[in-house]
Amino acid sequence: MNKAYMRVNTLLRIAGVLLVSVCMISLLAFRQPAGAPNVGPEYSSDGQLRMPDNYREWIYLSSGFDMSYVPNQAAGHHMFDNVFVNPAAYKIFQQTGSWPDKTVFVLEIREAQAKGSINQSGNYQGTDVMGYDIHVKDETHFQGKWAFFNFNSGEKTSKMIPQSADCYSCHAAHAAVDTTFVQFYPTLLPIAKAKGTLSAAYQKETAGK
Amino acid sequence: MNKAYMRVNTLLRIAGVLLVSVCMISLLAFRQPAGAPNVGPEYSSDGQLRMPDNYREWIYLSSGFDMSYVPNQAAGHHMFDNVFVNPAAYKIFQQTGSWPDKTVFVLEIREAQAKGSINQSGNYQGTDVMGYDIHVKDETHFQGKWAFFNFNSGEKTSKMIPQSADCYSCHAAHAAVDTTFVQFYPTLLPIAKAKGTLSAAYQKETAGK
Repeated sequence: MNKAYMRVNTLLRIAGVLLVSVCMISLLAFRQPAGAPNVGPEYSSDGQLRMPDNYREWIYLSSGFDMSYVPNQAAGHHMFDNVFVNPAAYKIFQQTGSWPDKTVFVLEIREAQAKGSINQSGNYQGTDVMGYDIHVKDETHFQGKWAFFNFNSGEKTSKMIPQSADCYSCHAAHAAVDTTFVQFYPTLLPIAKAKGTLSAAYQKETAGK
Repeated sequence: MNKAYMRVNTLLRIAGVLLVSVCMISLLAFRQPAGAPNVGPEYSSDGQLRMPDNYREWIYLSSGFDMSYVPNQAAGHHMFDNVFVNPAAYKIFQQTGSWPDKTVFVLEIREAQAKGSINQSGNYQGTDVMGYDIHVKDETHFQGKWAFFNFNSGEKTSKMIPQSADCYSCHAAHAAVDTTFVQFYPTLLPIAKAKGTLSAAYQKETAGK
């Protein structure tokens, strides 16, 4: 080989390495921009669910204030609940009205504050989180496809709540879509109606209302 | 110039074009994944703010319930407000405790529902939106850097609220960070405290509390 050819070869290799490096950096930098971490459920080596670190950057579905499924429950203090779902699952729901495998809901239970700064009436959300309820669809991981978990504030992993618990039977009996309370998520309910994915139980419960 | 040099030159140019093309494609493909549309304010040809289509996929900051800055305001019906910020601005705030140029807040005012499905007490959010308050930082566009806008439900564009309106003076006098009510955004307040970006007015107002 002559010198010029070797020079071409070397320069092309350098250009190739540069090409790959710059593109890798672009991909890494743009793969998970702020607001779109897009993971499904993750488990510890002993099979417990890991608390998702970045759920506050997921898609917000709705909030409740002092919601209770039991009449006249007196909590003694006001509470908000905020519900988030992972972006990949949300995207599929928008297209189909159904939840794909690896859907993760995080319900955050947060203290309500009343008077503070210039707020004079009503309630806003404070910095204290009381805990989390997490609902996961993982078809190969759980016998009933879906599983519930509770986390206290600060807990990193949690065991699945046994399938005999009330939350499973109540969600199965009353939830609008595939054991999830889409009736409380105002931007999703019209999608489920349009796509015809409302559960038979929910349709029966709301018929004529 | 000899032939070998010209060949090197040509090949390097091809490699350069390839490098730029592949990187442009990577950037375009990964710039806006599901759940992270990342735009700043957009205006109509007559200078009105366009209602952001996808604010529900932005970063959720907090919700209020019947919040009012006026004592004993009786609205006659319960209301939620939900606040979202564009992901690019949120990312900078996390790093600096400050809002960059092109920050957009959307405050959505949504009807509260009480009894429905299995909910027995407290309130959840219904499908009706009453309107929106939008707060935009656009340093070259607005004399005071920030501007407020109101949108009715369904409105596509809206004129800036004049700077003489109360919202400007109230936000300037009481907001925790750069005319924004970070004191009501529980995940952001600790960041502003840590980064030392709380306004003098807010620090004075909360001193000793």
